[in-house]
Amino acid sequence: MIGIAVLGCGRIGAMHAANIAAHPGARLAAVQDINAAAAAATAAATGAPVLASAAEVLASKDVDAVLIATATDTHADLLEQAVAAGKPVLCEKPIDLSLARVNRCAETIRGSKLPIQLGFVRRFDPGHKAVHDAVASGDLGELHQVVITSRDPGLAPEAYMKVSGGIFRDMTIHDFDMARYILGEEPETVMAVGSRLVAPAMMVRLNDFDTVTVVMRTASGKQAIITNSREALYGYDQRVEAFGSKGMALSDNRRPHQMRRSGKNFSEHAAPLLHFFIERYREAFDAEIDAFVKAVETGQPAVVGFEDGRRALMLAEAALKSIAEGRAVKVAEVA
Amino acid sequence: MIGIAVLGCGRIGAMHAANIAAHPGARLAAVQDINAAAAAATAAATGAPVLASAAEVLASKDVDAVLIATATDTHADLLEQAVAAGKPVLCEKPIDLSLARVNRCAETIRGSKLPIQLGFVRRFDPGHKAVHDAVASGDLGELHQVVITSRDPGLAPEAYMKVSGGIFRDMTIHDFDMARYILGEEPETVMAVGSRLVAPAMMVRLNDFDTVTVVMRTASGKQAIITNSREALYGYDQRVEAFGSKGMALSDNRRPHQMRRSGKNFSEHAAPLLHFFIERYREAFDAEIDAFVKAVETGQPAVVGFEDGRRALMLAEAALKSIAEGRAVKVAEVA
Amino acid sequence: MIGIAVLGCGRIGAMHAANIAAHPGARLAAVQDINAAAAAATAAATGAPVLASAAEVLASKDVDAVLIATATDTHADLLEQAVAAGKPVLCEKPIDLSLARVNRCAETIRGSKLPIQLGFVRRFDPGHKAVHDAVASGDLGELHQVVITSRDPGLAPEAYMKVSGGIFRDMTIHDFDMARYILGEEPETVMAVGSRLVAPAMMVRLNDFDTVTVVMRTASGKQAIITNSREALYGYDQRVEAFGSKGMALSDNRRPHQMRRSGKNFSEHAAPLLHFFIERYREAFDAEIDAFVKAVETGQPAVVGFEDGRRALMLAEAALKSIAEGRAVKVAEVA
Amino acid sequence: MIGIAVLGCGRIGAMHAANIAAHPGARLAAVQDINAAAAAATAAATGAPVLASAAEVLASKDVDAVLIATATDTHADLLEQAVAAGKPVLCEKPIDLSLARVNRCAETIRGSKLPIQLGFVRRFDPGHKAVHDAVASGDLGELHQVVITSRDPGLAPEAYMKVSGGIFRDMTIHDFDMARYILGEEPETVMAVGSRLVAPAMMVRLNDFDTVTVVMRTASGKQAIITNSREALYGYDQRVEAFGSKGMALSDNRRPHQMRRSGKNFSEHAAPLLHFFIERYREAFDAEIDAFVKAVETGQPAVVGFEDGRRALMLAEAALKSIAEGRAVKVAEVA
Repeated sequence: MIGIAVLGCGRIGAMHAANIAAHPGARLAAVQDINAAAAAATAAATGAPVLASAAEVLASKDVDAVLIATATDTHADLLEQAVAAGKPVLCEKPIDLSLARVNRCAETIRGSKLPIQLGFVRRFDPGHKAVHDAVASGDLGELHQVVITSRDPGLAPEAYMKVSGGIFRDMTIHDFDMARYILGEEPETVMAVGSRLVAPAMMVRLNDFDTVTVVMRTASGKQAIITNSREALYGYDQRVEAFGSKGMALSDNRRPHQMRRSGKNFSEHAAPLLHFFIERYREAFDAEIDAFVKAVETGQPAVVGFEDGRRALMLAEAALKSIAEGRAVKVAEVA
Repeated sequence: MIGIAVLGCGRIGAMHAANIAAHPGARLAAVQDINAAAAAATAAATGAPVLASAAEVLASKDVDAVLIATATDTHADLLEQAVAAGKPVLCEKPIDLSLARVNRCAETIRGSKLPIQLGFVRRFDPGHKAVHDAVASGDLGELHQVVITSRDPGLAPEAYMKVSGGIFRDMTIHDFDMARYILGEEPETVMAVGSRLVAPAMMVRLNDFDTVTVVMRTASGKQAIITNSREALYGYDQRVEAFGSKGMALSDNRRPHQMRRSGKNFSEHAAPLLHFFIERYREAFDAEIDAFVKAVETGQPAVVGFEDGRRALMLAEAALKSIAEGRAVKVAEVA
Repeated sequence: MIGIAVLGCGRIGAMHAANIAAHPGARLAAVQDINAAAAAATAAATGAPVLASAAEVLASKDVDAVLIATATDTHADLLEQAVAAGKPVLCEKPIDLSLARVNRCAETIRGSKLPIQLGFVRRFDPGHKAVHDAVASGDLGELHQVVITSRDPGLAPEAYMKVSGGIFRDMTIHDFDMARYILGEEPETVMAVGSRLVAPAMMVRLNDFDTVTVVMRTASGKQAIITNSREALYGYDQRVEAFGSKGMALSDNRRPHQMRRSGKNFSEHAAPLLHFFIERYREAFDAEIDAFVKAVETGQPAVVGFEDGRRALMLAEAALKSIAEGRAVKVAEVA
Repeated sequence: MIGIAVLGCGRIGAMHAANIAAHPGARLAAVQDINAAAAAATAAATGAPVLASAAEVLASKDVDAVLIATATDTHADLLEQAVAAGKPVLCEKPIDLSLARVNRCAETIRGSKLPIQLGFVRRFDPGHKAVHDAVASGDLGELHQVVITSRDPGLAPEAYMKVSGGIFRDMTIHDFDMARYILGEEPETVMAVGSRLVAPAMMVRLNDFDTVTVVMRTASGKQAIITNSREALYGYDQRVEAFGSKGMALSDNRRPHQMRRSGKNFSEHAAPLLHFFIERYREAFDAEIDAFVKAVETGQPAVVGFEDGRRALMLAEAALKSIAEGRAVKVAEVA
């Protein structure tokens, strides 16, 4: 049994803690949060011990690996400390809002053989993974286009948005990773447009966008299109499509059940999409922990690692630059 | 070009007349109706000549074949006269409401080699036919169950219902034929239940049912289930399912278009089903004429013929007897 | 926290044990099985103590309620003993294969106010429940027809089938309960047909059927149709449809994910249905425990109780009699 | 009855001729083609007279209006001549491959009150129109994004491609119009990427692309995304999605029938999409003629007119410029 400690007991840390506790191959070795109440609540729900600081966690012999779910601006530091302490890491995205900081972190941990997994949970979604596998197996022939629709069910509070790094680093980052995962090769150029349609006043205050589209092109000509919105009234709209010379695969949305109703003047009326990312990606969060446990057990590299986190952030930088300059930006420009 | 005359210019006769006129291999040789205005209207819409009587039509050298779309109680007489006149026939269902009359008709036309086609149009529906073909090709393995859902969009007027022969001879007769078409063997026993739920008072007056279910079993154990209602508020509900040892095929409903809408608290809200049989089975009505033209051209037997009409009526009789006696009725009992 | 003990640690008992252990309002107070290894394995997976006998369990002060997941022929005895010991019960279906034994059991526990819940888990499925709620809310108007398709993914071993009580008591029993749940009134007559198509030789040996259809009618004329097969190659086919004067609701099948693939000559190719009842009804099994915990906490009657188990068994008896006698059987005849 | 003449009896002209002949409010006044055999074939199929030249058609008193389905490079000339002759025009897209020529044509016909309709048939598709109507009615709230997927079933021959004007003027032009139709306001900027993936060698020879994505943005921030491919093996992929503050509407693909098959290891296997634009947009082609007949009868402007054709071509120009210069191009730059 791998002993995993969770740093950060907010909404997502608490969920990971419960998933680790329920995993047959792992135990929840400790939980920690700078907010003692949050740590205590997670400990109470899982029966895990609370440790007072990240340092204490990293020093603990009972801790085989750590999951970092703290505030974004602490990720890189904790990741470096964990590697220094010899602990494999599962780190929530993004590694940092600053590409320069991420690059320094890469330097710092260079050479380490420890499994470092990035929290791009959507790679573990059974439907999205099935799209990936249809590409990888050749069922779709040569891949031509990847089309990702990703719309949040509702706007996060302004306080959260303020420290999020903006839509590209906070939300689209998942889709950048998904595009790379399905494409199987690196985007070479990025073009983006941004709009303020959901909450224009807030977006102006934050110098951010709530509605964006990104088009990327690889050197071989493959195209990836991402459309994002911060608010879809019908739920969490998450679709991934791959199109190739031999066919198309689409991972479609999920609902809480499959009841459909017909009546006067309508048919097929269904429930809204699952609203909450924890429900929508429930199996994926389980599979993510599972993959991490396997990586720790075997010492093999994580299936989605530090470089994936860095690459996704580069695409976010390129998208921002594309909007600012109204042109196609080469990813190499922001490297 | 085969010259086809249409006897009976009511709703369905007028539609057939237009379809024949538009068919590349046929011409509408004449139209006739005891109601002169109906005949005139169909003639005006199609450019076809009006003839004064069925006798005149059957005597015309310009008429190669006839389509009988008159009142049900004239079908058998006209069919016999057409055969006597050497004209191939496409006859709307049912041949007659009385099995005895149908059996006499069978005697009368025995030995004729003329193509005689029964108007079981649903056999020509691309979806239902694809279910049949999935069975016939072996894609479903050994066939075990056929499940037919067939609900009219709305109750017909009482005046029509009164002369319809009741739900089994008027409406279920299509499903009896569909069951035989998919099963590929004859039902041996029939069990039925009937209810008065849509228009109870009218059904009591007519000694009829508006909601019925029929279960049939062949000698080899294959089962066919038919559920009918006279009124589905969401449109014309027409589904055919075949289940076998290697899989299942379902011909699902059709809508006027594929737009689906999502909003607050719902998703996938679609248009109601096509309401009108002429729209729902448009391709099938075309294909039915096509099959008839081919049969007349080649002199081959019709793909759905007189005996199919007789067999479906026997199943209707058996269903009525099953309800009356509260037991499984052998089809042989009503033969 | 309600302490619940699990009697019987076979496949379904082990699953219930895990679900109870994970339930926030319950603790797994003990596990027991006549097979010591099974009990030990469940104990190891959950951390719960093993008790040596049912008697010990029922005597334990640490046990607030019991879940009976033992062999069917012990259900009635254990249920009576649990009631005598003052422990609320969640009992797997069926109560017993003999209606006479079930009736005796009813006599024995008559007057007890303890919550007794029957394991008709499908009532807790979100999709099927949404169909029920669409009926109960009046969204569908007056209910006319309930159509249940229920096909197992594959035949159970002959040894299991031999003691199962036959398809109606073992498999259709769930659908009988579902029909009663959706109908909201009691079936008055039952007609059934049975066939041996999946495994004819085994079915002859067992005097059982593998392919059945049941049609029931309530006094007011509502119809319920159940079609069953012991083997659907494409997965666990579980559909519930309700049709009424104002519309229709259909709880459709579930797949492991929503990826669909198109290619040369096809489109929409999807994964097979979920194959295993534990996956297909995962949320329902959780909700079932949840309902039991609430019943125990509040002392309110279970939402699906002993009489529901007895009624479903009566319908199974009536179906068998209908096949044997080739007629519609009144439920009152088997009471 | 409006007398309409068809100029050009190629594939699409012949189809229009048949549709006009079958329209209850129109008659096919004449057909003409520089290829006498093509004109004769269409005349034979419809019974319409052949006229020898466009000039003769435009001079005929029997001709109330003309449909131009000739080679693209004759559209503008014929359109000007028809207007000079006082005949309303339904002109196939594009007006011309040269925006300068289109602008000259606009000058020439300026001031005419004759109905001039452009052949953007997809506006008449019931599903796409339902998306438009969901936007226009406010059902979707404020519109934020339009997402158009448009993939041809297969590459046209190189000879056709050579004179087509390239993918943006030949194929995407329909999607540019659809985007404008749904958006309800003009795109301000255009960004595009192009790839050569389906037939790279041919595309190099033609200096064309077979796989393109276009992102447009209106002044108010609305976004429209178009993804095109010249070859989708599973059929003619035609989807239009509108996303707004209150919901989403998607016009999905169409198949020849609704049969879906399940078997070992799969479910929901469906027929490929309709392959041919004449089948896919059959109702739309009928409705297009219907709209033209109404415009001619009433003298009202066409619902989709000359300026729509000109605007779509401007977007094609902007897309080409965007690829060439690797930047967002303002539509005003190409005006």
